[in-house]
Parts: sequence; C-alpha cells; structure tokens
Amino acid sequence: MKEHDMQITLSTTKKEKPQADQLEFGKQFTDHMFIMDYTQGQGWHDPRIVPYQPLSLEPSAMIFHYGQSVFEGLKAYATPEDEIILFRPEKNFQRLNSSNSRLCIPDVDVDFALKALKTLISVDKDWVPQAEGTSLYIRPFIIATEPYLGVSPSNKYQFIIIMSPVGSYYKEGIHPVKIAVESAFTRAVNGGTGEAKTGGNYASSLKAQEVSEKMGYAQVLWLDGVEKKYIEEVGSMNVFFKINGEIITPALNGSILPGITRDSIIELLKHWGLPVSERRISMEEVHEAYKLGHLEEAFGTGTAAVISPIGEFLWNGEEMLVQSGETGELSRKLYDTLTGVQTGKVADELNWTTKVEEKVTQ
Amino acid sequence: MKEHDMQITLSTTKKEKPQADQLEFGKQFTDHMFIMDYTQGQGWHDPRIVPYQPLSLEPSAMIFHYGQSVFEGLKAYATPEDEIILFRPEKNFQRLNSSNSRLCIPDVDVDFALKALKTLISVDKDWVPQAEGTSLYIRPFIIATEPYLGVSPSNKYQFIIIMSPVGSYYKEGIHPVKIAVESAFTRAVNGGTGEAKTGGNYASSLKAQEVSEKMGYAQVLWLDGVEKKYIEEVGSMNVFFKINGEIITPALNGSILPGITRDSIIELLKHWGLPVSERRISMEEVHEAYKLGHLEEAFGTGTAAVISPIGEFLWNGEEMLVQSGETGELSRKLYDTLTGVQTGKVADELNWTTKVEEKVTQ
Ligand SMILES: Cc1ncc(COP(=O)(O)O)c(C=O)c1O
Ligand SMILES: Cc1ncc(COP(=O)(O)O)c(C=O)c1O
Repeated sequence: MKEHDMQITLSTTKKEKPQADQLEFGKQFTDHMFIMDYTQGQGWHDPRIVPYQPLSLEPSAMIFHYGQSVFEGLKAYATPEDEIILFRPEKNFQRLNSSNSRLCIPDVDVDFALKALKTLISVDKDWVPQAEGTSLYIRPFIIATEPYLGVSPSNKYQFIIIMSPVGSYYKEGIHPVKIAVESAFTRAVNGGTGEAKTGGNYASSLKAQEVSEKMGYAQVLWLDGVEKKYIEEVGSMNVFFKINGEIITPALNGSILPGITRDSIIELLKHWGLPVSERRISMEEVHEAYKLGHLEEAFGTGTAAVISPIGEFLWNGEEMLVQSGETGELSRKLYDTLTGVQTGKVADELNWTTKVEEKVTQ
Repeated sequence: MKEHDMQITLSTTKKEKPQADQLEFGKQFTDHMFIMDYTQGQGWHDPRIVPYQPLSLEPSAMIFHYGQSVFEGLKAYATPEDEIILFRPEKNFQRLNSSNSRLCIPDVDVDFALKALKTLISVDKDWVPQAEGTSLYIRPFIIATEPYLGVSPSNKYQFIIIMSPVGSYYKEGIHPVKIAVESAFTRAVNGGTGEAKTGGNYASSLKAQEVSEKMGYAQVLWLDGVEKKYIEEVGSMNVFFKINGEIITPALNGSILPGITRDSIIELLKHWGLPVSERRISMEEVHEAYKLGHLEEAFGTGTAAVISPIGEFLWNGEEMLVQSGETGELSRKLYDTLTGVQTGKVADELNWTTKVEEKVTQ
C-alpha cells in the first residue's frame, strides 16, 4: 500500500480545543481519525483519514465476544522550535505486529502505518499541545469485526488510530507512588498473552487494581504466575530496581510486556556506562536488599508517566520504604533526560526521535 | 426493574428465515435484540427490545481497548408439543454475574434478565427452528462502553442479548474428535480469569487452536498453567474421563470454566447412581490408564455440542486411541438423555427446563 492510496476527508466542523490546564488523559479526541479495513483474501485496504466519529458494528462482531484485539500507545510532542516529533514510533508498530502474531491478527506494514500516522498528525497538528509536560497521546488499535459467533480468528478487522491531547502526568512535579505486591491475582503466565498488548490482559488486571486502590495503593506489583515469586511488572509499567549500584529489570520472559521506555532506559544506562542487568529478580531478593539498606531506588517505566518512582512496597503486610519515600537521583536523571529528548530540549544522542513533516494544510 | 418497564419496538420488516439445512452457527440472527444500559450512579436502565441493528460506539469505548466484557451461551428448543423451552437458563445468568464480579462489571438482576430473555424469545418465536437437532442459540453479553482510555473499570456498559438459529452440531450423527494436548500455550492460570466467561480467554486460545488444527486436530486439551501437568479443559468445553469404571472430571480450581453441561452431567450420573469424581487428574494418570487398557471413554461437554466424544489424544508425540476411536456407551447415553431433556422428548426428572410463555403476539 502506498501513501497516495490514502483518502482524506476533512471534517467540516472543528471541535473546541481544551485549555492546557483542562486536559484529561484519554477523554478528549482530535478532529480526525485513521481507519483501514482488512478482509481475508483481500488484505488491508481502504486506508483513510475521516472526521472523528462513532464506529458502527454488528452486535455479533467478534470484538464484542472473543476479545481479539491489540493496541499501542505513543506520544507526539511539540518542540521549542514548533516542530512535532515522535519518540521511536517504529518500535510501537513493530510491537503491534508482535501482538498481532500472538492474537492471530494479520500484520500491518510498519512503514505504511508510520506514514499514515504522520499524515494524521499533520491534519490535526493544531491539536498537539504546547505547554510544558503536555503531549498528544496516540492510540493505534486493531479490532476483530467479522459478524460471527464461532471461536476462531476473525476474517475481518479494522485498524484505527485516534489521538488525544494529554496534560502533564505529574501536575505537582514527579513524585513517588505506593505499590502493593499482588499475591492473589495473576496478570499473565508463560504461554499466555502477557507479552502482547491485548485487551484481555488489562481486563484481567482491573480486579487487583481495584482491591489495592481501596487499601490506598496506586498500583500493584505483579509476580510471576507460576511460583508467585519473581517480579514481572508494576501496574501497566515495567519496573526497575537499583540495588547496591546495580540497576536491575526483570528479563523478558514471555509474560512481561516489552516496554519501549524500558528498552530506552536500558540503552541509555549502557550509553552512560552504568551497570544494568536484565535478569530474574524475586521479591525475596528485593526484601533482603531492603533489610540490608541496599535498596537504593525503584521505579516503573511506561509511555504515560515515563518514570514513576516507587516510594513504598507493601509485601506480606510489611511496608518497605524506598529512598525515604522520595524521588531518587537516578529516577530523576532518567526522567529529565527522556522527557528532554522526547520534547526536543535535550540532544537526541541515540537517534530516537522522528520529525513529523507537515505536508497537509487544512 | 420490572418487566413492564421494558419498551418493545417491533421491526417493520422481517428477515427471511434460513431453511433448516442452511443454518450456520452464529451467522444469522433473529429480527430483534434486547438492550439495557448501565451508567454509574444510575444503575441498569432503559431495558428495551429493538429491531436487530448495528451498535454505534465511540472509537474510544473501553471495549475496543481493555477487553472488559463477559458473555453467556445457552439454547432454546422447540418441543414436539410446539412449546419453547430453555435448559437451566438461571444458571447462565448466575454465571454471568460471577464473570461480572471478576471483571469489575456491575451485576444484573437474574430474574429480570430471564424475563427479558423470555420476552425476546416470544417476540422472535418463529425463529426457533423445529427440525431434529436444531435450536435457537442465545448470546447474552455485556461490554464496557465508556469513551475513556484510562485503565480502570468502565462507568458505562451495555447488556445485550442476540439470538441465532443453529443447525445440528452433528450433521452425520455424534462422532469422536481428535484432541492434541497443548504443552506450549496456556489458556488460564490460578489468579487469572479462567473461571470467567470473558473475551480475553478466547482471544488467547486462538493461537493454540490454529496450530493444532494445522496438525489435523479438532481442539486442544489445556493443562494447568503452573505445572503443565493437570488437565483443565478441552477447547472451549469441560472434559470427562471414564477410567476403570470411575467417571472423572477436573475439580473447579479457579482457572476452569464451571460449565453448566458439566454440572448437569455430574448431577445426572449421581442420579443414575454411577461413581463420579471431581478431582485433580494429570495427563500422566490418563496415559497410565491408557497403557493398562483402563481408559474407557473421554468426552468434552458444552452447550454447543452437548457431548463431544474424544477418539484420540496426541500427547508428547504419542497417539492414544480411546474406544478404538468410536463413541463410547456412556457418552452416547449422556448425549441422548441430555438432548432428550433439552428438547422435551425425555422426562425432565431433575427439573431442568423452563417453559417460555408466549405472551407477545406480533
Ligand atoms: C502492561 C504494560 N507494561 C509495560 C508498559 C510500558 O510500555 P511502554 O514503555 O512501551 O509504554 C505498558 C504500557 O505501554 C503496559 O501496558
Ligand atoms: C472455556 C469453556 N469451557 C467450558 C464450556 C462449557 O460450558 P457450558 O456447558 O455451560 O456450555 C464453555 C462453553 O460454554 C467454555 O467457553
């Protein structure tokens, strides 16, 4: 498929853009969206940019019954030079294809998807917010649309991209959260769908999240589904520990989502010459380090918060304070560097950002 | 909510009903559907029967992203006396509520849901097929509809019932299938969503199903996600073994779906005075019994096929034939009795069926 195959239908009305201080995550959407259809035998076809609008689907469409879906999340940022840049967007479309493969959904062409996204952003470029800490959140997703109640891969899909201007994750500056280690519920298990970005993983996580919120904890820390021993992720973020100088994150094992922020941090730490290990790490090891005073920092990583320092773990009834509940030096440095690169304010030494060429004028 | 709160809007056109020999599972739907909305603070409201029609949902509706959904499957049958009966329908709505609880979805009123279903069937009573082996498949489902990209329980839902006339599962009479024991992929794990009827479980099962079909096997047999040792289910059915006279089905352990056919078979076997055990059973135990010539029968159970005899297991490269690949005596007797009761042809000794009163005339 070529870029020029894409139909663009511009909206005749424009929605009012929210003020920078009224931005809510994932509730307001831009004037346009991208859609492309898949039909078995024909492949992906009819890529188009259309006014943002409801989807009309048969009640028997497979997405409503058997959860065959994948999604991605990334951000576009306005630079001080008024350019719009994306952070490693090809990684998101590559991961979308890994998720597709696990969910029996046909691959999309990464280059084409990226071009489509850039065109969509150009059409809605006035929606990229400028204020400090704000960005345009981008949600590509694929849903099974065949109207059929049989349990089998769908013969029809829609690939859709919607975009939402979002405010600063940290309204009062970066600050640590409290995390409860989850011992009853499981997020994912080897042989399951943990490494794919698919709806079911998030649906199944809601209950544990609800329970921990009631206890005053922001997120849960997920342990492996087999031994309930090894650390996997925290909420919907990857997780890092700094123990006695070593920076550790759980190795990708099939049930952990391969985060792009996680990957960027590993590369950045190596670039800085700091010792970083991807390996198995148990909650016992973290607790042992804590008792010895060696648990120096802990933080979650993901597109939404970038770095989310952890100030406390609740494990087996014990409250383990990290960095006296304050943001650690490494967490802050990583946060400043990554957000700096993402917004074009810090030199992009690892070549991570991509400019959106603004070809389309409205 | 009361029955008389329900609005009924009849369709002005009627679709042509498929011939008995052209019925396809889950592809053709009746003229009407039931819908009810949920809004946080207001509860379930606006129950209505409307012409079968597409759903219009925001692209940001949570169902498209985080898979928060549950469903049920049951059947209505025409009796020789031209009555319409349902098989243990209250069990389905009770299970829907168990699924709801796991998925953080608000409960529905079981009595009201059953009344709504009966009214819907009455409206579309001409769609209940009469021919031998046919039935009206009923699909109640709930989807999260709030337009919001945050990972949290939705504040809005729709509860919908659609219905599809279905042909005989066994066109050439009941016959055994070949099953491959799955060792790489996992359906569910303790602490996950295995005992809930939610989309993600089915999405995650597609890959294993695809692989086994390519090898010529109809379904996979799922082992537990922790030790990959104990038997859980087969495809989307529960599973029974007859070993040396003992009839065994895996005990409900949190990752197995509590099938209503499974429950009915256990009750029926007890009623008949046959020895039935709900307990842990490993693939080693089945293999051992097979080698000693004690593996007498094996079958899957579920609403779609009722009883699906298993003629062969593929495990670790070994093909284990059961009953020389033929349907066993117990499997056949259970099939005949259950389908007999379901269609009103065999005395309903355990009080399982419910009549649909045909109040509504079109
Ligand atoms: C389950 C889960 N883990 C980790 C992440 C972090 O991934 P990324 O850094 O690519 O945003 C996300 C969010 O995207 C996620 O949903
Ligand atoms: C995963 C799974 N197991 C078992 C069953 C059998 O349950 P029931 O007998 O209630 O149809 C079903 C189908 O409904 C199912 O989806």
